[in-house]
Amino acid sequence: MTATTKDHILIFDTTLRDGEQSPGATMSHNEKLEIAVLLDEMGVDIIEAGFPIASEGDFKAVREIAGNARNAVICGLSRARFMDIDRCWEAVKHAERPRIHTFIGTSPLHRAIPNLTRDEMADLIHKTVSHARNLCDNVQWSPMDATRTEHDYLCRVIGIAIRAGATTINIPDTVGYTAPRESANLITMLLKEVPGAEDITFATHCHNDLGMATANALAAVEAGVRQIECTINGLGERAGNTALEEVVMALKVRNDIMPYSTRIDTSKIMNLSRRVATVSGFTVQPNKAIVGKNAFAHESGIHQDGMLKNPENFEIMRPEDVGLAESSLPLGKHSGRAALKAKMKDLGYELADNQLKDVFMRFKVLADQKKEVFDEDLLALMADEGTMAAYDKIRVRELRVVCGTSGPQTAELTLTVDGKEHSVTATGGGPVDATFNAVQMIVPHGGRLALYNVHAVTEGTDAQATVSVRIEDGGHIAMGQSADTDTVVASAKAYVNALNKLLVRREKTAPAQ
Amino acid sequence: MTATTKDHILIFDTTLRDGEQSPGATMSHNEKLEIAVLLDEMGVDIIEAGFPIASEGDFKAVREIAGNARNAVICGLSRARFMDIDRCWEAVKHAERPRIHTFIGTSPLHRAIPNLTRDEMADLIHKTVSHARNLCDNVQWSPMDATRTEHDYLCRVIGIAIRAGATTINIPDTVGYTAPRESANLITMLLKEVPGAEDITFATHCHNDLGMATANALAAVEAGVRQIECTINGLGERAGNTALEEVVMALKVRNDIMPYSTRIDTSKIMNLSRRVATVSGFTVQPNKAIVGKNAFAHESGIHQDGMLKNPENFEIMRPEDVGLAESSLPLGKHSGRAALKAKMKDLGYELADNQLKDVFMRFKVLADQKKEVFDEDLLALMADEGTMAAYDKIRVRELRVVCGTSGPQTAELTLTVDGKEHSVTATGGGPVDATFNAVQMIVPHGGRLALYNVHAVTEGTDAQATVSVRIEDGGHIAMGQSADTDTVVASAKAYVNALNKLLVRREKTAPAQ
Repeated sequence: MTATTKDHILIFDTTLRDGEQSPGATMSHNEKLEIAVLLDEMGVDIIEAGFPIASEGDFKAVREIAGNARNAVICGLSRARFMDIDRCWEAVKHAERPRIHTFIGTSPLHRAIPNLTRDEMADLIHKTVSHARNLCDNVQWSPMDATRTEHDYLCRVIGIAIRAGATTINIPDTVGYTAPRESANLITMLLKEVPGAEDITFATHCHNDLGMATANALAAVEAGVRQIECTINGLGERAGNTALEEVVMALKVRNDIMPYSTRIDTSKIMNLSRRVATVSGFTVQPNKAIVGKNAFAHESGIHQDGMLKNPENFEIMRPEDVGLAESSLPLGKHSGRAALKAKMKDLGYELADNQLKDVFMRFKVLADQKKEVFDEDLLALMADEGTMAAYDKIRVRELRVVCGTSGPQTAELTLTVDGKEHSVTATGGGPVDATFNAVQMIVPHGGRLALYNVHAVTEGTDAQATVSVRIEDGGHIAMGQSADTDTVVASAKAYVNALNKLLVRREKTAPAQ
Repeated sequence: MTATTKDHILIFDTTLRDGEQSPGATMSHNEKLEIAVLLDEMGVDIIEAGFPIASEGDFKAVREIAGNARNAVICGLSRARFMDIDRCWEAVKHAERPRIHTFIGTSPLHRAIPNLTRDEMADLIHKTVSHARNLCDNVQWSPMDATRTEHDYLCRVIGIAIRAGATTINIPDTVGYTAPRESANLITMLLKEVPGAEDITFATHCHNDLGMATANALAAVEAGVRQIECTINGLGERAGNTALEEVVMALKVRNDIMPYSTRIDTSKIMNLSRRVATVSGFTVQPNKAIVGKNAFAHESGIHQDGMLKNPENFEIMRPEDVGLAESSLPLGKHSGRAALKAKMKDLGYELADNQLKDVFMRFKVLADQKKEVFDEDLLALMADEGTMAAYDKIRVRELRVVCGTSGPQTAELTLTVDGKEHSVTATGGGPVDATFNAVQMIVPHGGRLALYNVHAVTEGTDAQATVSVRIEDGGHIAMGQSADTDTVVASAKAYVNALNKLLVRREKTAPAQ
């Protein structure tokens, strides 16, 4: 277990569990492994890697992340059932520091779902937490919807969980309902009333439905909580979870009034934020705190004037503190392999020699197409690399599109499916529509296009576009991305990328329990 | 002046002033007028309509908004200079309820900019506030960077402003630095220490740099503030301002612990959020509180199960509370004029007969291209209508693009410039790049493409794409939008739209002071 001192705050990241539950944010296996490595390297204390019983895919991801972890505790989620807890343990036990997280909804509304009386639920909590503790020394228990649970019952069940062996008690504001003063008062009450509270670690898990997750988490810390549950970019269901970057930077910037420390290397925040935005397909709005494109941008004359005279006038953090290079030196077609390797290292990618060879070839193709290759181009290129490699049943071989003001738009497309070429010509309401129709003629898949987004990630008219596509089909969701200077080509590749994932998922995924 | 009772909170919206200062969020004159009408109708108490001395455009917008206002107080911003204050008064005096807002930076860092001593600045505050009060009964004064101003000096200058006639004192957390407890403590201190504090209204103006603007504003309210300054979608410089939708909904949902009321008709929130996102080009991230696409969406099996049994399990607000129709009935090619008119009314647009005729024609063209026309399509169509009409020096006449995997991509483009046709063929790194190169061949403008975004706003592969383009050129920034089922056509139109605005701005805009 990670040691906690009085002023040290443990950062528990649940991007891969609660974050991945955002409608449409489903990540691939390799993407989850990559994010876990980055979180571990950034200094996250506990990584909640998934919900092992939810699917075979979740189980495998948690097991592999557990095997790879260097410093972080690896945690899996489980409901209040022996079967869930056993499955969770099977997945996390390969970690050097495993944790089982088990939970049940304790508010009146949630007690009504399994139709348990107060006593029956208390008994179930005792049995399931004891079972988890028999398997693992490090057990976290959460009373879901704690902020809407009667105080006397909440104290009672937390006391039971502690006696049964829970080492961390997490207090979730499941519906994003609380406010800072109330959040602090609840923790103060629990620390005072629950026997044994002083021997375990209390945690806070907030949702942002009313825009107060960060303030609620920090208020809980001031009242005695020593673990904050959060996600990168505040990813999560509905309005999301507490944003890791906000709580960590607030504790750093306002250490004068909140004298607590974390182990987070804040200079890695921007890179993680970009990677999570790319793999989840959830964009970060320009005015998002800390990681938004405008978070360090100034416009008004008065502010610019003040900034030029003294950046402290309007900046409480330096861009470098969160890993944002103040000015990026772009690469071009004459840049060599060493320059690319050094730049990629700056961006957080350590490339092995054979990997560098591949990336360098792709970089040269890109550099021929545009004058300057910016950091964002390289990140987009790496994203493409990562997502394209794993699935290659279908590939885009050739595409020619004619579009414009006088329709119909036509797409001539050649795909290779399992190595065999197929060509068709299709029409549509636009170049992308025509292209997607062509893909569907070759591979009729029955899925529904649920999201289509284009981000031009770099400056200049020859910007490389990153396209995100989500295809849904009953229980399956697949997200695809690709980057290219030609938006239509990027769209075709992203669509095919999503399709490849969907087909893999249909074949392999066991139904969720 | 709007009356304030003990538990009534005035909502002061500064989307058109602080929001419009976001880098790249510049709105056109007509867009500002439209947003002001919507804010007034929603029940905003005070609309800060602009910074009249900043430019001729700002002045005209504030003057016209003042003339149109029905219920709201119309406020303009001015620095601590007689010339600024006079210009502000010239703009707001046409309102039934005008307000002059004047400010100066009072923290040590900001006092150093004009190089004034404490006494000199105190004297300047007395003179400028008195001058404003001689012109207008309703005067707001703000000590900029109040949260980093020495407490004794802050009390002294606020006392001076009150004696000079200020009726509202606003406490800005200019750098987004404070935390809820500190925010409340500052207000408590001021109410206790400043003579005459009980006779005026205190306001809070928070920035979201550490993700706590909403909580800070509400903590200030609990300490005695009775006016919240905020913006739609939290628009504003850097991480933006307090989001109107968050403070208003938090006061509504948690009225049990925060017993305060506002005049806001919350069912109009979603429509305003969408309009502001469209005209500013600032997208709202899916996990944004209240107005994000996912704010009311549920994914995980456990949550869905709970939702089906009782929505209260996971929802503290109903989608209808913020004006989000639970299910939207799409229109199709057989829908008539009356159905369109009724639907547009639902979406917040009252169409006059001749306007309906135009929109209906555009709707029919769209309905021929796609099976179902969703609410978002209609909103995109109206956005196009609004932004295209005002500027028409250059128009897209015809476009034909050939693109795909084997470049170079080519665009054959015909534009009409002042009624005369010009045709060229250009190549580029992608279909959009080729198209933009073609536009530049016909109209060499020297501006820089600073932003290019595509949002596919509706479901289905024949989604209508909304394209946002920002062109920058020294001091000028122009934002263009357009919507079309063909992304490339939408891109061309959005680019030309931005270019038209840029040319108008170059001709007409006086340099900022």
